[in-house]
Amino acid sequence: MNGAHTLVHTLLDSGVDVCFANPGTSEMHFVAALDRVPGMRCVLGLFEGVATGAADGYYRMTDRPAATLLHLGPGLANGLANLHNAKKARSGIVNIVGDHATAHLALDAPLTADVHGVAAPMSHWVRTVDSVDALAADGRAAVAQARARPGRIATLILPADKAWSEAAGAPVRQGPVPEAAPDALDAGAIERTAQALRTQGASTLLLLGGRALRADATRWAGRIAAATGCAVMSEFYGARLERGAGRAAIPRVPYAVDAAVAALARFRHIILVGAAEPVAFFAYPGKPGRLAPPGCRFTALATPAHDAERALAALCDALDAAHLACPVLDQAVPGAEAGAGPLDSASIASVLAALIPEDAIVVDEAISTGRAFDRPTSTAAPHDWLTGMGGSIGYGLPVAVGAALGAPGRKVIALEGDGSAMYTPQALWTMAREGLDVTAVVFANRSYQILRGEFAGVGAGAPGQRATDMLTFDRPALDWVALGRGLGVPAARVESPAAFAAALRRALDSGGPGLIEVVL
Amino acid sequence: MNGAHTLVHTLLDSGVDVCFANPGTSEMHFVAALDRVPGMRCVLGLFEGVATGAADGYYRMTDRPAATLLHLGPGLANGLANLHNAKKARSGIVNIVGDHATAHLALDAPLTADVHGVAAPMSHWVRTVDSVDALAADGRAAVAQARARPGRIATLILPADKAWSEAAGAPVRQGPVPEAAPDALDAGAIERTAQALRTQGASTLLLLGGRALRADATRWAGRIAAATGCAVMSEFYGARLERGAGRAAIPRVPYAVDAAVAALARFRHIILVGAAEPVAFFAYPGKPGRLAPPGCRFTALATPAHDAERALAALCDALDAAHLACPVLDQAVPGAEAGAGPLDSASIASVLAALIPEDAIVVDEAISTGRAFDRPTSTAAPHDWLTGMGGSIGYGLPVAVGAALGAPGRKVIALEGDGSAMYTPQALWTMAREGLDVTAVVFANRSYQILRGEFAGVGAGAPGQRATDMLTFDRPALDWVALGRGLGVPAARVESPAAFAAALRRALDSGGPGLIEVVL
Repeated sequence: MNGAHTLVHTLLDSGVDVCFANPGTSEMHFVAALDRVPGMRCVLGLFEGVATGAADGYYRMTDRPAATLLHLGPGLANGLANLHNAKKARSGIVNIVGDHATAHLALDAPLTADVHGVAAPMSHWVRTVDSVDALAADGRAAVAQARARPGRIATLILPADKAWSEAAGAPVRQGPVPEAAPDALDAGAIERTAQALRTQGASTLLLLGGRALRADATRWAGRIAAATGCAVMSEFYGARLERGAGRAAIPRVPYAVDAAVAALARFRHIILVGAAEPVAFFAYPGKPGRLAPPGCRFTALATPAHDAERALAALCDALDAAHLACPVLDQAVPGAEAGAGPLDSASIASVLAALIPEDAIVVDEAISTGRAFDRPTSTAAPHDWLTGMGGSIGYGLPVAVGAALGAPGRKVIALEGDGSAMYTPQALWTMAREGLDVTAVVFANRSYQILRGEFAGVGAGAPGQRATDMLTFDRPALDWVALGRGLGVPAARVESPAAFAAALRRALDSGGPGLIEVVL
Repeated sequence: MNGAHTLVHTLLDSGVDVCFANPGTSEMHFVAALDRVPGMRCVLGLFEGVATGAADGYYRMTDRPAATLLHLGPGLANGLANLHNAKKARSGIVNIVGDHATAHLALDAPLTADVHGVAAPMSHWVRTVDSVDALAADGRAAVAQARARPGRIATLILPADKAWSEAAGAPVRQGPVPEAAPDALDAGAIERTAQALRTQGASTLLLLGGRALRADATRWAGRIAAATGCAVMSEFYGARLERGAGRAAIPRVPYAVDAAVAALARFRHIILVGAAEPVAFFAYPGKPGRLAPPGCRFTALATPAHDAERALAALCDALDAAHLACPVLDQAVPGAEAGAGPLDSASIASVLAALIPEDAIVVDEAISTGRAFDRPTSTAAPHDWLTGMGGSIGYGLPVAVGAALGAPGRKVIALEGDGSAMYTPQALWTMAREGLDVTAVVFANRSYQILRGEFAGVGAGAPGQRATDMLTFDRPALDWVALGRGLGVPAARVESPAAFAAALRRALDSGGPGLIEVVL
C-alpha cells in the first residue's frame, strides 16, 4: 500500500469521508487511491476557495471535519481566504496539500514555494510528512486536531514521494476519532453567575456564540432570561444560529459601531457563552473598538472549549428556572409575503420570512442588502442561519455547497451580495455537478455598497469619480442569469417583490440548484 | 496631508502610476486620496488574483512596477497565487495591503490575521508602516525593491490609522526611482565562454531566459550560433519572448521530462544567459529531476541581475561575430490558415500562425492544447509570447489585462485552457470595464487534460471512475459564451478551424475585448 492509499485509508478509518478537492500533479496518487478505497466522497471544485469554504459549511452542519485536497503552495493560497473564515468560525478541517517530492525541492522548480509558510497564518496545526511509515499517524493526528473542541484547521503537507512510496505495512484500523471532550464546567463560576443574575439581571446580557446558538442552548438561555430579566443576544456573526418561529428570539449585536454601542449601552455585565467580547469589525477615527460601555464587566460562563448547552442548562438549574417556559419565542407572522411596492431590503425580507422552508439552511452573505433581514426573518419557519465569521467575502456560495452536502434533504438558500458572489462564483458549478438543493439569491446593486458607507464612516467624506470607480461595477453590469447558465445553474432575474417570491418558490420547489438575480 | 494621500503622492513621484485594486474598508483613505491626487490610473478587479496577475503582466511589458491595493490578510491571500507566478517571472510589484488600525489588532476582530505571515512566502520584501511620518520613505523603499534587477515583490502593509493620520509635512519630491543598474559583466567569464564556444560549439547550448528573450538579445545569440555552431534554446517558460518571422528561432526546452532529456542529451556544456539549470516541472518516480545529461557543465554568462543583451553582445564581440547575419531566423510561412479537417492543436496552431497580428502580445496558458503551438506559431508575424512562470494556473487572463494596459495600441491574445481560465474568470470583467483590446481564446476540452497525462506519468496507471471525476468537468459543461456575456465580454463558440479563424479575425478587428470558446 503506497502512502496516498494509506492516507485515504486512514482518513476514512478516522471518520473523515468527504473530501473537497482541486488536485494537481502532486496529488495524482491520492486521486488514484480514491479508485482503490471505496467510501470517500470526493467533490471537485474548480477553484480552491470553493473546496475550503465547502469544508467550513460541512463542519458547521455536521460538527465533523471534511478533508480538502489542494495543490502545492499556490493551490493552498487560493484556499486561504476561506480557511481564514473557517478558522474564525471554529470549523475543523483537514487540509491535505501536496508538495513536490522532497528531493525535487532543492531544484527550485516553478511551483516550489514555502508551503508551510503559506499554511501557517490560517492553520492551527501544520505538519509536513517526512516518512511514508509515519503517514498513518500523521493523518490521524491531523483528524484529531480538526476534532478538537472547538474545531481546528489542520494542514498536512504531503510530498509526492511520500504519496507514491510503499509503506512498510497496512495501517492498523483504530476507528473514528471522536470529537474532543469539552472542558469541565466550573461549578463555582456557574453559581457566581447565577448569583449575579439574581441581583442584577436587568443590566446583564447573556451573549451567545458558537454552539450556544443551537436551539437547545438558546432555549435554556430564554428560560434564564425569563427567570432573571437579563437580555440575550448573539454575536453579530454566528457559525450556525438555529432560529425561527417557536425558537428563542436572539437578536444579533449590530454591525455598525454606533448602533452596537447603543444596543449594549445599558449593560453593566456581559456573560459570554461561547462568545468573545464584542468589538468593532473595523476601527474608525474617533470611535471605540470595544462596543460595550466602559466599566462593563465580562465573565465567561463557557468558552468555545466548553459545552455551551450544558453550561446554560446548569445555570438554569442553579437559578431553579429549568421548569419555566421560554418566553421570548419568535412567533410566526402570517404572511405578508409579497406585495406591491419597491424591491428593497424590507420587501425582500418579507418574502424570505414567508418562504424560508422549515428546516432550511440560510447562508447569509447579503452584506448591505441583508442588514435589515435579521428581525423580519426571525419569524420564518424554523431554520439555521449561517453568517461569515472571518469577514472575508466569497464565503457564502462555497459554504452553501458544504452545508448542502453535510445536511442532505434540507434546502439551502444562499443570500449573496453581487460583489461577494464574484469572489467564488465557481461554487455554482459544483452545485450543478453534485445536484445540490441550493438556491443562490444574488442581490445586484452593482456596487460594493457597504464600502460607500464605510467610505463616509472612516471620515473620507463623499467619494469623487475616481473613488466611485473603485466602489461600483455597473459598467458593465454583471449578468447573473448568464453567469448561472455558464456554470450550469438555471437562473432567473427579478425586479419586483412578487417576481422574487415567484422565482424563489419555483427554485425551492425544483429540488436542484438555482440562481435568482435580484436587481436593486 | 494624511498618510494615504502621502502614499499615493509618493508612488506617483517614484514613477508608479498604475494601481490594480480590490479595496475594502481599511483601504478607503487610499481610495479617497485617488480623488485628490491626479495621475494614478486605478483599475478595479473583482477578485484579488486579477489585480496581482495584472501587475505581473504590466511589468512584463513595461519593465516597470505597478501597485496593487489589497484588503487585509484574506484579500492578500486571494492574490498570492499570481504573486507566486509574478515572483517566478521576476516581475517587480508594489503591493499596498491595508491592515486594521494598530490598536484594533489587539481586539482580534474577524478580519484580523497575520498579514506579514501571509505576505512573506510570495514576497521578497515586507514592511509594516509604523509611523505616518515614515510613510513616504517606506513607499519609496517599496518602489526601489520592485525596481531591483531582476524585479522583486515588495509588500507594504498599511495600518488604517497610518493612512488616516496627518503626516508632519508634505513629502519631498525626489522623482522617479530608476531601475537598479545591472551587475557588472565579468570580462574574464566572457573570454572563457568565447574560448569554450570556439573549441566545443557543437556540443554547447546557449540557454536563454528573462530579458535574454528580447529580440535584440536573441539576435546576438543567433550570431553566436552562426559563428560557433552552438545551439540556442529558451527555458520552457519565458516572461516575454520576442519571436516570430524575421527574428531568431529560439525553441523552448520541452515540458515533458523524456522529451526534454532527449532535446538536451547532446550537450556537454550549457551556458546560462538569464536562465537557470533546466529542471523537471514535477518529480516522477524513476525519472530525473535535472534534465541535462550527467556531467554536463554549466556556466553563467549572465544571471538575471546582469544585462543579458550586453553580455551576449560582448560575447559576440569576443567571438568577432558581431558582423555576421543572424542565420537562424524564423521565416513567415505563407498561410495555410484554416482548412478542412478536425479542430485540434495542429489546426488551431495553423490559424494562430496565420492570424497573430504584427506586434501582438500572446499570453499562453493553453496548457495541454498549446503544447504543439511552439513551432508552428514561431513563423507568425513578429509578436511577444508570454508564458506562466510559476506553474500556478489562473495567471493568463489577469496577465492579459496588465499586458494590455502596459502596451496600449498592441493587440493581446490570451490562449486559455478552460480549466485554467476558471481560476480567474473575473479578469474578463476588467477587460470589459477598461475596454481592453484582448481576445481570450478558451480551449474547451472540459477536463484537466494535462492531469490525465500526469496521472499516467506518476505511475498511477489508468484512472477509474472516481479518479476521472476529479479530472473532468464535462458534467455539466461550462458555457463560455454565457460566462463571457455574464462578465460583459462578447463571445462566440466555434467547432471547426474555419469558424475559429473567422471568429478570431472578427475579435481582433473589433478592437475591444472578445472571447472565443473553441470546443474540442
